[in-house]
Parts: sequence; structure tokens; C-alpha cells
Amino acid sequence: MIKRLIEEITKKNAPIVVGLDPMLGYVPEYILTNSFEKYGETLEGASDAILQFNKGIVDAVYDLIPAVKPQVAMYEQFGVPGMKAFKETVDYCKEKGLIVIGDVKRGDIGSTSAAYATAHLGKVKVGGSICSAFDEDFVTVNPYLGSDGVKPFIDVCKEENKGIFVLVKTSNPSSGEFQDKIFEDKHLYELVAEKVLEWGSQCMDGTYSNVGCVIGATYPEMGKALRKMLPHNYILVPGYGAQGGTAKDLAAYFNEDGLGAIVNSSRGIIAAYKQEKYSKYTQANYADASRQAVLDMKEDLLANM
Amino acid sequence: MIKRLIEEITKKNAPIVVGLDPMLGYVPEYILTNSFEKYGETLEGASDAILQFNKGIVDAVYDLIPAVKPQVAMYEQFGVPGMKAFKETVDYCKEKGLIVIGDVKRGDIGSTSAAYATAHLGKVKVGGSICSAFDEDFVTVNPYLGSDGVKPFIDVCKEENKGIFVLVKTSNPSSGEFQDKIFEDKHLYELVAEKVLEWGSQCMDGTYSNVGCVIGATYPEMGKALRKMLPHNYILVPGYGAQGGTAKDLAAYFNEDGLGAIVNSSRGIIAAYKQEKYSKYTQANYADASRQAVLDMKEDLLANM
Repeated sequence: MIKRLIEEITKKNAPIVVGLDPMLGYVPEYILTNSFEKYGETLEGASDAILQFNKGIVDAVYDLIPAVKPQVAMYEQFGVPGMKAFKETVDYCKEKGLIVIGDVKRGDIGSTSAAYATAHLGKVKVGGSICSAFDEDFVTVNPYLGSDGVKPFIDVCKEENKGIFVLVKTSNPSSGEFQDKIFEDKHLYELVAEKVLEWGSQCMDGTYSNVGCVIGATYPEMGKALRKMLPHNYILVPGYGAQGGTAKDLAAYFNEDGLGAIVNSSRGIIAAYKQEKYSKYTQANYADASRQAVLDMKEDLLANM
Repeated sequence: MIKRLIEEITKKNAPIVVGLDPMLGYVPEYILTNSFEKYGETLEGASDAILQFNKGIVDAVYDLIPAVKPQVAMYEQFGVPGMKAFKETVDYCKEKGLIVIGDVKRGDIGSTSAAYATAHLGKVKVGGSICSAFDEDFVTVNPYLGSDGVKPFIDVCKEENKGIFVLVKTSNPSSGEFQDKIFEDKHLYELVAEKVLEWGSQCMDGTYSNVGCVIGATYPEMGKALRKMLPHNYILVPGYGAQGGTAKDLAAYFNEDGLGAIVNSSRGIIAAYKQEKYSKYTQANYADASRQAVLDMKEDLLANM
């Protein structure tokens, strides 16, 4: 699957993933009104609104980008209807040829991690049928429980040609509380990175591995060091834009082949029409603002690579 | 909410939580046949089967136990219908007066963790309405992302009188890969425990805090040390029975007041009828086997406390 992601990145010349993390506050009034008229001010109404909002953005940007990253929490907060909107978002993006990275940060032990891997990447046997649940292409995985928690995902990656990004160094201010602790001269995030190297070597797909990692744009020195440690593992980079990471910071996340990293922007793209910079766009053309924000992000990244 | 949990534990004299982690392989043939006849060999069929299976068990044991712990992964693998079965399981258990601990192991940053907290413990505003999504009483939380990831859960616990159990030392064989690393004389799990102490002190509900922790029954020496470190934080203990933890190991997880821990058993209870020990029970009375397994677990725990 990483090979396909690289092909799409190369074809579109855009190491960019758009984070589909819709909040109701981002959704234009006319969409909300429409969804609430159909379903009321209910979980169904909210879920329909974020789905329609997503579709507008996807229609406006799908030809520019290789991938999207829906953040499942934003859907889960609307309960069962929200999870339906998540699934419909995944399906819609795949129909448009986009690669879908489910930002689910799951991780548990043994059979439970296997169930999560099945839920998001695999297939489940029901009687004589084989069914898919959410069926993303990649997911993010939390490593706190150790290899037991990650291996079931790797097994499914091998079977289904899918991929994962393991949390190594997250973009948030308090990520260092545990991740930066030093054990025998190595930070915890480096110990996790060593495991990513080991797990990834079992799961190569061309030059790169189907096991990648998450390293926040907000910690460029660490990103630089980890890039060297993990030459064949893709880095999914959150934290560009709204969280403070700049394109200049990001140059070090890429390999000399111009590959090796894919940079996420969520709010900066999907809520672009709310920014001063894109104030010429109205609610009615929020998706055009998102398109312009993708073009601007691409220019910014490519100028600094 | 911990106060209510303690009341129920005391009333039923059972520091026991039953893990509702249904696998299709546990579900008796007659239930599967019935659900597949209604919904086909589909995600809907599988989800209905696990829901009916759960209801049978809950009906048979609800008067004996204070709480259940549905493991969301087992539902998520059946997609949207599976999440519906999860929600219906939560609701059914609450109707029966049980406290529901959602074993979701969520954790992310800032607004995303807030969305997870809303999804599982809180309420979400949709237009002028206030809606609940999954509405468990407690959830399990993964600490890898640091305080940013946990605080949004604590905020919701305060607002809604709910609770969390933070993963400190998990029960699986490879949990030590990261959790046991030593930083300036302290294991990573101890550093997490120190944070649990800090977070918990903001969220007291009587003698105990609404912020508890998860410590596996399979590491009794660590359990003993952590019990002393965290006198006012409840311990949710997985790993009893099928994973190898014994009642003798568990005595050290309790405080002198006889409180402070609640022990989970999943497979050992819900698939009891498949064990040699309960071979007199048939598929038709699988739930009676579960009841007997709860009674046996209670006797075993109380004899060793």
C-alpha cells in the first residue's frame, strides 16, 4: 500500500494529506440548515452535515492530493450515526481515488488488537461470508502496549496489503511528558522508533515499508534524527500550520529521493474559509477556499524541500 | 461515579466486572442461526448475534455484579452495525442497573481527545439540542500522548460525574517493552502512575478518585507497589483467569478497607460453557454457565482477599 501512496504522491507532486476532522463549527450554515431540516437537531442531523461538508471539500481537492486522513474521534462523538458518516466518508474518498488514512490511534493486546486491525484494515468472517467493516488503507496505531498490540496490525497489513503509522513522537505540547524520557541514553520515542524499524522490516513494499510512523512537525530536531534512523519508513507528519510547524521545519523529514514524508493539514484546509487570508471566500464557496489552501500548502512545501 | 461503583461493589459484595468481549466463536449456534435468518450472514447478522448473546449473559448475572466492561474493538470489527450493537449493549446494561466501563483505550491530543471524551462520557451540542453518543460511565484511556491527551477526559469527568481508568501497566506479555523501561530509577509505568496521582487529585469523589488506573493481574509485584503509590485511585485489573492471574496474586491490589480494585474476567465468564469445568452446561444454557462462573470467581476472590 505504501507503494500506491508513493505513486499517488509522485503523480500529484504533493506530499500532502488533508485531515478530514470536521467540527460542527466549521460547517457552513446552509449545510447545517439543510441537514437539520432533514434529520432534526440530532446525532443524525449532525452526522449528515459533516458528511455533506466533507463531500464538498473532497470534490474540490481530490485531483490535487494523494490522500485524506479522517480523524475518527470527530465522527465517534456523534455516536452510531457519526460512525456511519465516517464509513461513508471513507467510501466516498476511495471512490474518488484517494488513499484513506484512518486516524484511529488504536492499540490493545492480542485478540483485541486483532479485532481493531480487522475493523479498520481487514476482513471479518460471518458464517460463510467475508465482510469488511471500515476498510481504510492505513491506520495510525498507539504503541504503549508493546509488540503484542502492534503485531496483529502488521499481520493484517501483510494479508491485505495495507499499512500503519505508529505514533513515535506526537505533535502536542505535552508529548514529551513520557515520549522524551531518557532510558539508557535513548528517548522513549527512539525506543519506539527502533521497534518501528524492526516491525517495518517484515513488511516492505518496494523501497519503503508498509509500517510508517507519526512524528509531529512541531519537533523538527527530533524529526531530523528520526528520519536518519528510519530511512525506509514513511513519516506521517501532523502539526503543520495551525499547530505551528512550518515548511522550513519539514525539509528534514524528507529523504534525498524527495520521498519519505507526507504532511497533514486539517483545520488549515477544511476550515480555510474562516481564515483572514481566505476572507474573499464566503460560506457558499468554502470548498473553493479549501482548494486554494491546498494549492498554497503545496507551493509552501515544495519551495522548502 | 467511583462512589456509585463502590456502592454497587459493596452492595453485591463482588469486586468483579464482567468483560463483554463477544467473539462470534463464543455465540451458541441457535443464536447465530436466528440472527442470520433475520439479517443474513452480514455485519448486521453478526452484530445482532453478539447483542443477543450479551443480553443472555447480562440477564443471568446482573444481580451478582456491579459492572460490565464491553471491549469496543469486538464491536468495531463489525462496522457500523457493530457500533450499534455496542451502544445497545451499553444501554441494556444501564437499564439493568449495571455500571458500564467502556474499554476503548482512546487517547489523542487536545480537541481530538475532547471529541473522544464527548463520544464516550459526555454530551454534544447539535444546534439547540444536547445529545449523548455512547454514554458509558467510565472509559479506559491511553496515556502515551501525555497530559494533553488525558485532561479533556478529566474535564468531562468533572462535568458529568464520570470516570476513567488510565493504562499504567497492562496485562500482556510484551507490556514491559516500553512500560518497564527505567528512567532515573523509575519505570515508565511509575511515571504514568505519578501522573494518575496528580490527575486523580483534581477529581475526587469521596475517598477515591474518579481517575483510576489499569494494572494487569499478571504482574502482581508491580501491582503491590503501585497500590501503595496510588492509595486513592481505583485499580481496574485485567488478566485474571484466562491470562494467568490468580486470586492469590490479586490480594495485594486491594486496600485495607477491602476496596480499591475491581477485577475483570471476560472469556472466563462469557465463554464459560466452552470450558471443561462447566461441561454440564449446553449451548442452550450458556448463560447459566456464565452465572456459575461469576459465583465461582466471587468465591475465589473473596477467599483470598
